[in-house]
Amino acid sequence: MASSTGTPKVTSVVDLPSSDAKWVKLQKATYVDAKGKERIWEIASRKTTGSAGVDAVAMGNIIYHPSKPPSTIVVIQFRPPVGGFTVEWPAGLIDADEKPEEAAVRELYEETGYKGKVISTSPPVAADPGMTSANLCLCMVEIHLNEGDPEPEQHLDEGEDIQRVNIPIAELYDRLEEFAKEGYVIAAKLYHWAAGAQYAIDHPELFARLGKKGQ
Amino acid sequence: MASSTGTPKVTSVVDLPSSDAKWVKLQKATYVDAKGKERIWEIASRKTTGSAGVDAVAMGNIIYHPSKPPSTIVVIQFRPPVGGFTVEWPAGLIDADEKPEEAAVRELYEETGYKGKVISTSPPVAADPGMTSANLCLCMVEIHLNEGDPEPEQHLDEGEDIQRVNIPIAELYDRLEEFAKEGYVIAAKLYHWAAGAQYAIDHPELFARLGKKGQ
Repeated sequence: MASSTGTPKVTSVVDLPSSDAKWVKLQKATYVDAKGKERIWEIASRKTTGSAGVDAVAMGNIIYHPSKPPSTIVVIQFRPPVGGFTVEWPAGLIDADEKPEEAAVRELYEETGYKGKVISTSPPVAADPGMTSANLCLCMVEIHLNEGDPEPEQHLDEGEDIQRVNIPIAELYDRLEEFAKEGYVIAAKLYHWAAGAQYAIDHPELFARLGKKGQ
Repeated sequence: MASSTGTPKVTSVVDLPSSDAKWVKLQKATYVDAKGKERIWEIASRKTTGSAGVDAVAMGNIIYHPSKPPSTIVVIQFRPPVGGFTVEWPAGLIDADEKPEEAAVRELYEETGYKGKVISTSPPVAADPGMTSANLCLCMVEIHLNEGDPEPEQHLDEGEDIQRVNIPIAELYDRLEEFAKEGYVIAAKLYHWAAGAQYAIDHPELFARLGKKGQ
């Protein structure tokens, strides 16, 4: 997705000592395994983890509209770590004095312009626990629109360039597959949520609960 | 989850220069944004990414049994990056000469003892694209058991200590929430899949497709 002025690109990648980094660091953990043997593990961590111990929040969101199918808003942005444009749910780092729910409402407003209501918050879950200590909460957010509501303005930080795409929730999985074929990089968490939902829709018999809810 | 001989624990964490690391590295990317402005981004990457460009594979799995509810097997292991025990789907790094589907069958066999059949493979998805280049494919795997099949043996590498837990798929989301309350760290990808499936089960009306499949 090129902007009006140009397509972002990575021009150089060089090694970075942890001491020179502001956001991330590389560490070596020494640990004792279940048999009492001392081992080592290499870890990439965030330097910005606040006192609450949760790095980030992602906003799974459902948009309700009187005359349009229920949908979700995803964001597309250039992500230097993958050298391309990603498709993700809106997300952001939690400020030091914020609760995950507060960060969710704030970041959703900044990245999309929408004001949402948090209906559930996950426990802190590990982004990639074989490699990093980074973690996040998934906040599910509902956005209720009225007929004729204009598309709201984003409130991006300087340097942020985030495109919004509204996708009917029933088409989310198929649309992510299409985005991937077009060269976009799908974020694993969004992909897994969409794949789980699609799996449940395609295989409802697997999810029937015996003895519950009268089934 | 303590083993028979002791509970693993991290005993020290020290900074690690990229040059001394075997598995991960820290990098500084210089990139040009859409407005032509030069910016920097800090990246944690794997050193082990093979020529195919995909680091890892995760095995979403469904176990079919003649007289038991359809279930999925998750693995619990001590993960030094989070300093605790995680609940994840079986997963592993893809060897240099492997296809994701081959790695999926191999790693599932090693970690769980089960022989599965890959029924779908995701595009490469980004583990945490704001921080790392690490990526993976989600392979959905089916395991078909016969009545009376014994629980198979694991084939773990030296130093691996991985517990298997079989969970009815209809209870997966609730069980993950319970594991979290007990102090286990849930991997984000598994959590998102389970949350997506549960959301679709709880809100089937959101996923109805107008004009498709006769609906």
